[in-house]
Amino acid sequence: MPLTDDIAAGVGNPPSCFCEGALSLPVRGFKEGREFATQDWVADEVPVALEFNGVSHAVMLATPLNLEEFALGFSLSEGVLDAPHELFAVEEERCEMGITLHLQVANRPFARLKERRRTLAGRTGCGLCGTESLEHVARILPASGEGPPWNRKAIGRAMSQFCELQTLQQATGAVHAAAWCSADGKVLWLREDVGRHNALDKLIGALALHGVDASTGFIAVTSRASFEMVQKTATAGVSLLAAVSAPTSFAVATAERARMTLVGFARRQDIVVYCHADRLALDAIHGGGRAL
Amino acid sequence: MPLTDDIAAGVGNPPSCFCEGALSLPVRGFKEGREFATQDWVADEVPVALEFNGVSHAVMLATPLNLEEFALGFSLSEGVLDAPHELFAVEEERCEMGITLHLQVANRPFARLKERRRTLAGRTGCGLCGTESLEHVARILPASGEGPPWNRKAIGRAMSQFCELQTLQQATGAVHAAAWCSADGKVLWLREDVGRHNALDKLIGALALHGVDASTGFIAVTSRASFEMVQKTATAGVSLLAAVSAPTSFAVATAERARMTLVGFARRQDIVVYCHADRLALDAIHGGGRAL
Repeated sequence: MPLTDDIAAGVGNPPSCFCEGALSLPVRGFKEGREFATQDWVADEVPVALEFNGVSHAVMLATPLNLEEFALGFSLSEGVLDAPHELFAVEEERCEMGITLHLQVANRPFARLKERRRTLAGRTGCGLCGTESLEHVARILPASGEGPPWNRKAIGRAMSQFCELQTLQQATGAVHAAAWCSADGKVLWLREDVGRHNALDKLIGALALHGVDASTGFIAVTSRASFEMVQKTATAGVSLLAAVSAPTSFAVATAERARMTLVGFARRQDIVVYCHADRLALDAIHGGGRAL
Repeated sequence: MPLTDDIAAGVGNPPSCFCEGALSLPVRGFKEGREFATQDWVADEVPVALEFNGVSHAVMLATPLNLEEFALGFSLSEGVLDAPHELFAVEEERCEMGITLHLQVANRPFARLKERRRTLAGRTGCGLCGTESLEHVARILPASGEGPPWNRKAIGRAMSQFCELQTLQQATGAVHAAAWCSADGKVLWLREDVGRHNALDKLIGALALHGVDASTGFIAVTSRASFEMVQKTATAGVSLLAAVSAPTSFAVATAERARMTLVGFARRQDIVVYCHADRLALDAIHGGGRAL
């Protein structure tokens, strides 16, 4: 499950079959003092450009799988679209340099996107999507309200299934996963990508495409919980995010504000709760994080 | 060393002293079946805006340490500046929302930056710095030429020191590190950040600020090796990148083209070499990766 526990999963075992989202490459190396030469599965990473109604928007480096879900999930979690029905169509165009996703979207969100772009005229954004000054960083987050109570054993149950469901990670050791789990801890949807934000976007897109009410379950991720992971999860209406690794200070502050229960170091039955522990039948933790 | 091996480093051990780049927060949780409440160190993550000669450029989420190095390293590795002397001054402005870095840079690179922005007028970039269409993705990389030969034992030596030098990671479990190592495997410079790209940018900035000829050593990172990590390393003139975790396909192809030796799964004495193994006194690996 952790990125680094599956050292050289494929190395030394020449892959015998096709692995979607990975390429087989010749490698050499040393292991336990002995030289070897073999084939190894390497996670595929491709520049993916997103175009809204013919206007270029962004290029992400992503694993070229589940791209329609990625297009929808990115649009929703980045606040370009408010609802799945605003996306009419996604066309994939592959060329030698990468993949362009042509999104046809409704007029209203497109006009808003153009307006956002107009006010940033002549500038480029980076790091944070289309963001170039501090005022734009923290979007208004939907508060999760009281949300359902969560059972900490369900988190443990989800975490114990997580590992074996990550087929691309098992082959390559290079990808992150995001999973949506039912309240009783069944992993029902899982997506993998070389980028942890992309994996989460693909998951959010998959839920939206299939009409799943995301708020009835929780999200588990193999990565750390950073600000953006919390922001995307909150935008999807989910009130519990469980990360295998640690959160950052800004993630805790953002989750606190969005009334989201933020769990880190979720491994087997162990958890560390950084805010809104009350939903896990733990006493509430107050003041966890810097005021925003 | 791996992000996930240091589970809950601080949890259960209330921190007794100040840790730069981290905040102490109250947490609750379960560990080995028992409930606990304690203080935990959480890595600090803050929006950092970069402004060139008064013009907003980008916002990154970063650990608020070594920000002058970050400003210089980002400018160099993203191709905004060609040389350290083009950066005249960096001023930090802290506000409640984050930190703005005001960079004063020379006229020539600033004119080029404005021109780049003009051609992107009215658009925002994202994912990749200021990039919104596939044509802009792969910059012209400096080829490392023949480069020095490397000793694989030096990589092992560097990796064995890596872990104990990561003080912020030991406290928080949430940050990545990038280190510059001498040819014989001494870790001479190390920087940590919640973002792996930021850690590498800070390292590159530190080397540039101190007039170190980066090409005489190699770079080791705690993360995976993605396309951008290879691109930044190549821009810094370094011909060997050793990553604790796996590379992606695009990283291998980019390293191949830049004539960089790319090592993955570098742990203790073990390594996997994905291209240009000849510099490590291994036979050359040809055709590793997709043609660019």
